[in-house]
Amino acid sequence: MKTIVFHGSTRVNGNTEYLTYHAVPKEKGTHIYLRDCNMIPIIDQRHDENGFDAVEDQHKDLIDQMLLHEAIVFSTPIYWYSMSGPMKTFIDRWSQILRDPSYKHFRGELSKKKVYLIAVGGDTPTIKGLPLVQQFNYICQFYNMSFEGYVIGKASKPGEIVKDKAALRAASTLIR
Amino acid sequence: MKTIVFHGSTRVNGNTEYLTYHAVPKEKGTHIYLRDCNMIPIIDQRHDENGFDAVEDQHKDLIDQMLLHEAIVFSTPIYWYSMSGPMKTFIDRWSQILRDPSYKHFRGELSKKKVYLIAVGGDTPTIKGLPLVQQFNYICQFYNMSFEGYVIGKASKPGEIVKDKAALRAASTLIR
Amino acid sequence: MKTIVFHGSTRVNGNTEYLTYHAVPKEKGTHIYLRDCNMIPIIDQRHDENGFDAVEDQHKDLIDQMLLHEAIVFSTPIYWYSMSGPMKTFIDRWSQILRDPSYKHFRGELSKKKVYLIAVGGDTPTIKGLPLVQQFNYICQFYNMSFEGYVIGKASKPGEIVKDKAALRAASTLIR
Amino acid sequence: MKTIVFHGSTRVNGNTEYLTYHAVPKEKGTHIYLRDCNMIPIIDQRHDENGFDAVEDQHKDLIDQMLLHEAIVFSTPIYWYSMSGPMKTFIDRWSQILRDPSYKHFRGELSKKKVYLIAVGGDTPTIKGLPLVQQFNYICQFYNMSFEGYVIGKASKPGEIVKDKAALRAASTLIR
Repeated sequence: MKTIVFHGSTRVNGNTEYLTYHAVPKEKGTHIYLRDCNMIPIIDQRHDENGFDAVEDQHKDLIDQMLLHEAIVFSTPIYWYSMSGPMKTFIDRWSQILRDPSYKHFRGELSKKKVYLIAVGGDTPTIKGLPLVQQFNYICQFYNMSFEGYVIGKASKPGEIVKDKAALRAASTLIR
Repeated sequence: MKTIVFHGSTRVNGNTEYLTYHAVPKEKGTHIYLRDCNMIPIIDQRHDENGFDAVEDQHKDLIDQMLLHEAIVFSTPIYWYSMSGPMKTFIDRWSQILRDPSYKHFRGELSKKKVYLIAVGGDTPTIKGLPLVQQFNYICQFYNMSFEGYVIGKASKPGEIVKDKAALRAASTLIR
Repeated sequence: MKTIVFHGSTRVNGNTEYLTYHAVPKEKGTHIYLRDCNMIPIIDQRHDENGFDAVEDQHKDLIDQMLLHEAIVFSTPIYWYSMSGPMKTFIDRWSQILRDPSYKHFRGELSKKKVYLIAVGGDTPTIKGLPLVQQFNYICQFYNMSFEGYVIGKASKPGEIVKDKAALRAASTLIR
Repeated sequence: MKTIVFHGSTRVNGNTEYLTYHAVPKEKGTHIYLRDCNMIPIIDQRHDENGFDAVEDQHKDLIDQMLLHEAIVFSTPIYWYSMSGPMKTFIDRWSQILRDPSYKHFRGELSKKKVYLIAVGGDTPTIKGLPLVQQFNYICQFYNMSFEGYVIGKASKPGEIVKDKAALRAASTLIR
C-alpha cells in the first residue's frame, strides 16, 4: 500500500517521529515534514464574492502528493490537547482546496483513502488525547475516508517515547 | 468583572463575532481580534540548550493584556472540528511564555481567571464541537483556571447565526 | 408534535424531573416513569440457537407507546457519568426488540423520531456529562433518529436545580 | 500485584472474557462474574431522611473482595456505547456504599487502587467506545484511583475477537 506520512512536529527527530517510524520506517513510504514546507494559514474567504485569493505556497504540492497515495498517516505531537500548528494549517487549508475549480476531484479521491493517526503527548495522552482522535474521526467522516486506526504515545522530554513500549508495539502493527 | 475577548475568526463580522457580542457587547470589555495581530506560530524549542529564541511579534502584548482581566472569553469558529488557526497559534505560544523568565507569574495569574468559550460551526456543532470543549477544559485544568461555561452556535453561511435563537439566548446570559 | 418522555430517575420529584417539566409540562405529552415499570435487565442471547427467551414484563408496552409518538425525550440523572440504571435497562433491551419477529418495523419507525436528551448531574455535568451526550448521539445514529438537542443541568441536593437558570431556560425552549 | 477482574458480560465465554483472559489469565487473579451475582439496582435514597434502606444481596461481598486487591480490572462488553447492565448496577451501588457508616474507609482504600478497563464492541468501538473510556476516567478521578490503561476490542459474533490481534496483543501487556 502506498503510504504518505505528514509529520506535524516542529522539532527534528522528536518523540512523535520516533514513534511514527515504527509504523512507517523512514526508508519506506513518502515522508513529508510540514515544518519544512511553506504554508500560509487559511483566511476564510469561502463567502467572499470572488472566493479565495490565490496563495503562492507549497500547499497544493502537498495535496497533489497526498492524492497519489492510498494511505495517509497524520503524525502530530499533542500541543495543548490538539494537533500541532503546522498540521492545523495543512488541514485548515483543505477548505480552500474544496472551492478550487481545479480540485473538483479532491473529495472523491479522498473518499478512497485509508487514514491513520499517530499522536504523542506528555499529559495523560491516552485520555486527554481522545478529543483529538474524535476530531480526526469527524474529518474522516466528512470526506468519507476510512479511519483505520490510531496510536497514542506518551512522552514529554526528548527520547522519552522509548519507554512507551505499548505504543511502540501498537505502532509497529498499525498499518497492515 | 473585567472581561477580555479573544476573537479567533479570520472573517470580519462573521457569525462567531455576532454570537460573541451577545455575551460581551462590542462597547463593553476588551476585544482582541487575533487576525489583526502579528503572531508567529510556535517552534518547539522547549528542549533546546538555550531554550526559545526571542520572537518579535505581538504575542507578549496580548498576554499582558490578558493578565489584566478577570474573565477571558475564547471565541472561535470551528475549523475542521477544532479551534481556528489564529486561536491555535495564540494558545500554542503559551508554551514559550511558560519558559520565559519574565513571566514566572503567568501560571499563578492564570489560575485566578474565569474562562468562557464561544464556538460556532456548521456541521452539527453541538455534537461535533464537543471535543473542542473538552480540549478547552483540559487547558483550563492545566492552568487551574475556572472553566465557567460555553456556548456552541450553529451557522455556516454569513448571517445564519441569527436563526440559532437558543445559542443567542445562552450567550446573552453566559457571563454573569 | 406528540411527545413521550422517559424519566430515568429513581427518585420522585427530583431535580431531573423538575428540569424536564420545563421542556414538557406534566400535563402535556406522555410521561413514563421507568422506576415504576417492571423491566428485566437484558441477558445477551443474540447468539443463542433459539435467540432470546420471551420476557414477561412491561418493556414491550413501553416500546409500543414510544412508537406512537413523534418526539422522544430521554430524561436521566447522571449516575457515575452515565445514564441511570432504569434508563440503561430500557435501552439495552432494544437489542432484544431488534431480534423480535413481531417488531420488524422497529428500526424503520425509530428512524422517523426526533430525540431529545435532558440530563442532570452534580459533578461539573456540562463537561463530565458530555460522554453521555455522545453516547446518545451514537444511539440515534444507529437507528437513524434525529438527535435534536440536549440540556445538561447542574444539581446535587434536592431542589438545587432551581439555581441553574441557564438550564431551565434552555429546557423551556428545547422542543420547538 | 493482586488483581481482581469484574466481568460484566451477560454471556458465558464471550468475546470480552476471551480478551480479558489475555490480560489476566483465568487461573491468575480473582475473577468475578457479575452475571452470577445477586445485585439489586440502586434506588437513590441519598437524600431520604433515613438514608438508604439495607439491601440483602451480594454487593457488599463484592466490595469487600475488591478492597483486598491492588489492581481492579473492569471488563465489559459495550452495550449501546456504554457499559453492560450488571457492571452499571455494580458501580451505581457504590453511591450507597459511600453513605454506609461501616464503609468509611471505602474512598480512602479505593484511592490506592490501580484500575484497568477492557471493553469489546461491534460498532467501531475504538471510536464509539471512547465516551465509555472517558466515563471510567471520571470515576477514577472521583475516587482518586489511578487509571492505568485500557484496551478496546472489536467483535460482534461469538469468537470474532480472535481476529483483533492488536487488541489481544495490547491486552496481554496491559498489566505490568
